[in-house]
Amino acid sequence: MAEVTQTGRVTEGIRSRIATRSLCAGDRLPSVRRSAADFGVSPATVVEAYDRLVAEGLIAAVPRSGFFVSHLAGAPQGPAAHAPLREHEIDPFWVSRQSLDSSQSIDKPGCGWLPPDWMPQRALQKALREVSRDGDLLTLYGTTAGDPVLRRQIALRFAAEGLECDPDRILLTQSGSQAIDLICRLLLVPGDTVLLDDPCYFNYQALIAAHKVRAVSVPFLRSGPDPAAFESIVAAQRPRLYITNSNLHNPTGGSLSLTSAHRLSGIAAAHGMVIVEDDIFADFAPGVPTMAALDGLSGVIRVGSFSKTLSAALRCGYIAARPEWIDALTDLQLATGFGGPPPIATSAISRVLAGGGYRRHMEELRRRLARARQAMALRLTAIGIVPQGDPVGGFTLWCRLPDGVDSAVLARRCLARDVVLAPGNVFSPSQSATSFLRINVAHTSDHALLQLELSMRGATP
Amino acid sequence: MAEVTQTGRVTEGIRSRIATRSLCAGDRLPSVRRSAADFGVSPATVVEAYDRLVAEGLIAAVPRSGFFVSHLAGAPQGPAAHAPLREHEIDPFWVSRQSLDSSQSIDKPGCGWLPPDWMPQRALQKALREVSRDGDLLTLYGTTAGDPVLRRQIALRFAAEGLECDPDRILLTQSGSQAIDLICRLLLVPGDTVLLDDPCYFNYQALIAAHKVRAVSVPFLRSGPDPAAFESIVAAQRPRLYITNSNLHNPTGGSLSLTSAHRLSGIAAAHGMVIVEDDIFADFAPGVPTMAALDGLSGVIRVGSFSKTLSAALRCGYIAARPEWIDALTDLQLATGFGGPPPIATSAISRVLAGGGYRRHMEELRRRLARARQAMALRLTAIGIVPQGDPVGGFTLWCRLPDGVDSAVLARRCLARDVVLAPGNVFSPSQSATSFLRINVAHTSDHALLQLELSMRGATP
Repeated sequence: MAEVTQTGRVTEGIRSRIATRSLCAGDRLPSVRRSAADFGVSPATVVEAYDRLVAEGLIAAVPRSGFFVSHLAGAPQGPAAHAPLREHEIDPFWVSRQSLDSSQSIDKPGCGWLPPDWMPQRALQKALREVSRDGDLLTLYGTTAGDPVLRRQIALRFAAEGLECDPDRILLTQSGSQAIDLICRLLLVPGDTVLLDDPCYFNYQALIAAHKVRAVSVPFLRSGPDPAAFESIVAAQRPRLYITNSNLHNPTGGSLSLTSAHRLSGIAAAHGMVIVEDDIFADFAPGVPTMAALDGLSGVIRVGSFSKTLSAALRCGYIAARPEWIDALTDLQLATGFGGPPPIATSAISRVLAGGGYRRHMEELRRRLARARQAMALRLTAIGIVPQGDPVGGFTLWCRLPDGVDSAVLARRCLARDVVLAPGNVFSPSQSATSFLRINVAHTSDHALLQLELSMRGATP
Repeated sequence: MAEVTQTGRVTEGIRSRIATRSLCAGDRLPSVRRSAADFGVSPATVVEAYDRLVAEGLIAAVPRSGFFVSHLAGAPQGPAAHAPLREHEIDPFWVSRQSLDSSQSIDKPGCGWLPPDWMPQRALQKALREVSRDGDLLTLYGTTAGDPVLRRQIALRFAAEGLECDPDRILLTQSGSQAIDLICRLLLVPGDTVLLDDPCYFNYQALIAAHKVRAVSVPFLRSGPDPAAFESIVAAQRPRLYITNSNLHNPTGGSLSLTSAHRLSGIAAAHGMVIVEDDIFADFAPGVPTMAALDGLSGVIRVGSFSKTLSAALRCGYIAARPEWIDALTDLQLATGFGGPPPIATSAISRVLAGGGYRRHMEELRRRLARARQAMALRLTAIGIVPQGDPVGGFTLWCRLPDGVDSAVLARRCLARDVVLAPGNVFSPSQSATSFLRINVAHTSDHALLQLELSMRGATP
C-alpha cells in the first residue's frame, strides 16, 4: 500500500512537470538513479512509475538511451490544459464545450450539473464496489431493453406521480440526450418540423440540426407556452414533435400548471403532434403534473436520466412510450449502438435507488438547493442581475442583466477571467435572450461573482 | 455482514417464488412473522428484505393489509425468463436478441463475446474500486473527446502497429457500433451507397438499414475481397463508404494479406470511397497489416472497442480519423448523446491498460483460444460440421454444415432445445450462406454440441 502511494507520487511528479512544460516532448527524463534520489524512493519504485507512464503513452523507453517525453504527450494535461480551447462562435455548442472541456479549476456558473460533493458519493461508491464483485455485471453486455430491476424502479417512481406504466414500456438508453435522439430517428423524416420552446435547452437545437429537420419555436412563459399561441403555431406549422421540459424548464426554471399541461397535451393530440416530455429535473420538484401522466403515454413520450441527480459519470437515460414505439426504439438502439447503458452503471443506479439512499439524498438536496437559490438570488440582485420568477426547485436561476449588457460579450470577458457563463442566446432559437444569463447556484463562488461584477462594468455601454 | 447475507437470502427467496409464479401479481406475501419463521431469521431482517423488494417495485405495501406482489412484477425474472422471447424472423437482429436477451443458463454457441471467466475480472475489479474512490470520476461528465490518458494509450498501441496517430485524432465513443453509426451520420446522405462484405457482421446490415441508405456487397474470401471484383463494384456502384473487419473478419475469421490491404485501400482512394476499418478483433491477432496504417488515416477511418477483449459491460469504443472529421464527430456525439462513454468506464479501462494486466491477459487469452479453436475444430469435424480456413486468432469458427442442412432450420430446432446459434444467413446480404454457421469456441459446451448433433439429424433431408 505504501509502495503504491510512492509510485503514485513519482508518476504525479513527472506528469506535472510535463503538464507545466518543464519537461517537453523529446526531452530526456532524469535517470532512474537520479529520480530515486530526487523523490527519496527506491530505484524499483521509479522503474515502476516510469513503466506506468510508458503504458500511458506519456513517456517512451529508448533502449540503451533512457526515457524520453513522448510526442504523444503533446496536449498539456492538468492545470495548464484549460488555455488552448478551440475558438468557436457562441453557438448552441458553446456552453457544452466550455463547461465540459475547461479545466476543473475554472469557475463554471454556466454549467448544467451539480458539483461532485453535492452528489451521493458514498452510496455510489458502495454500489459500484458491489457491482465490481459480480463477474457477469463486470464483463457482459446487458439485455436489449436494459436492467429489468431498474426499469421496474422507474415504473414505480412513475406510479408515485400518477403515471401508470408497465416496465416493458420503458427502454434504458445511454443518456437523456440519446433518448431524444433515438426518438427523433424513429419518428422524423426529412422535411419534418420540430417545435421547441424559446428559450430552450441549447442542446435541443444542436440535436435538431443534426437531424437536418426544421425547427420552429414558441415563447416559453412562467407556466409554459401561452395555449392560444401554441395552438396557432401547431396548426400553421404542423410540427411532428414538440420537445420540452415541463417541470423546471431549462433554462427558465418555470413549470407547467395543471391547466397548461392539460391544454397543451389536448392541442397536441388534436393535431397528431407527439410530445417528448424531457423530465430530467423531475426529482428536484416532485409533484408537478406531467403531460405523460395526463395523456397516459399515448401521444406523449417521457424521457429522463440520472445525470443531474445521481451521477453524470454513470450515463443512463430512459424512454417510456407506447409499446410498439419501445419495440422499435429497442431495435434502433441495438442497430446503432449494440445496446444501451453499461450494465455496471444501471446496476449501480438500481442499488442506490433500492437502498433508500437516493430518496434521502434528494430530500437533503432539495433543502440545500432552496437555501442556495435564495442566497444567490440576493447576491445577484445586489449587483444588478435579477433572477426571473421563483423556481420551485433545481440548481439554476434565469437572470436578467442590467440594461445594455450583452450576455455574449459578458461571457467572452468572463472566459478571459477563467469563468464560464451560459449566455442567454445559446438557449434562444430566435436569438432574443441577449440580456439573460443562466446561473448555476451550486457552481458560483465568491470569486466568480466578483469576476462577473468586474466584467459587467466593462460591458455596460 | 451476516445480517446482509440473511437479508439477501430472504429477498432472493421471495424473488424466486415470484419468478417461478408460485407467487403471482396480486398475491399477498406471508406475514413478517411467518416469513421470519420460514427463513429462520429475525422479523427485522424480513422487514428489511420486504422494504428492499418494495424499493425494487417487485412488491407493494398496503397499509393495514400487508405486502402484495406488484403488478409491475409481471415479467418473470430469472430462470423462467427465457421462455417468452418475442417471435421474430431470422433477420440480422435475430442473433443479437437471442444472445442478449435469453437467460444466462442457455447455451449460446452463436453469441459474439467471451464468457465472464475468460475476462480479466480481477484487474477490472481493482480498477473499478480505484475509480469509485474518486468523487470527480464518480459523478461528473467527461470531456467531449473522452479521457486523454486512454486516447494516448490507444495512440501508443497504434504506434506499435505502425500507425502514427496523434491522440487528438482519436475520439472515444459509447461503443464500436456507435462509432460506426456516428461516421455514417457524418458522411452519408440519403441516396448514398455503402459497400459491405458478404458475409459480414450482421449488425452492419441493421445499421445501414437504420440510415435508410443502399447497401451493396462484395464476396469476402479468405484474405479479403478479390481486388478485381472489388474494383468493378466500386467503379459501378460508387459507394461512399466500405465497412469491413480487415483483421479476423466477422464471421469468416479471414484476415487481409498485406497485398490485399494495399490494393483495396488504393482502389478506395482512387474512387474517393472512405474505408471504415473496424478492428475490434485486432488484439486477438496482433501484427496483421491494417489499411489505416498503410493509408495513414487519410481516407481510412479506424474504429475499435474493448468489448471483446476486456469487458462489454464498460461500453467504450473509439474512432481514429482525419482531424477535421474528429472535430465534426465530437460535435455530433455531443449533440446526439451529450458526450461519449462513461468516465468511470474509460478510467477503469485506462487503469487496466496501464497496469500491464491487459498485455498479460491478451497473451494468455490468445494461447487459450488457440487450444480451444483446435479442440473444437476436431469435435465439430467429427459430427460433420467443417470449419473453413484456419483463423489466426479469435473465438469463432466459420463452419460448413453437411449437405442439405439449412442453418436457419437448425437454429430454430436448437433454440427449442435452449441452444442459441448464429445461422449463416444473418451474416449474408445475398442470403447465400444457408449452409454455414458461426460457432463460438468458448461458448460451446458438451451439452450444446450434443443438442447440435441431435438437431442436425432431424434437419438432414
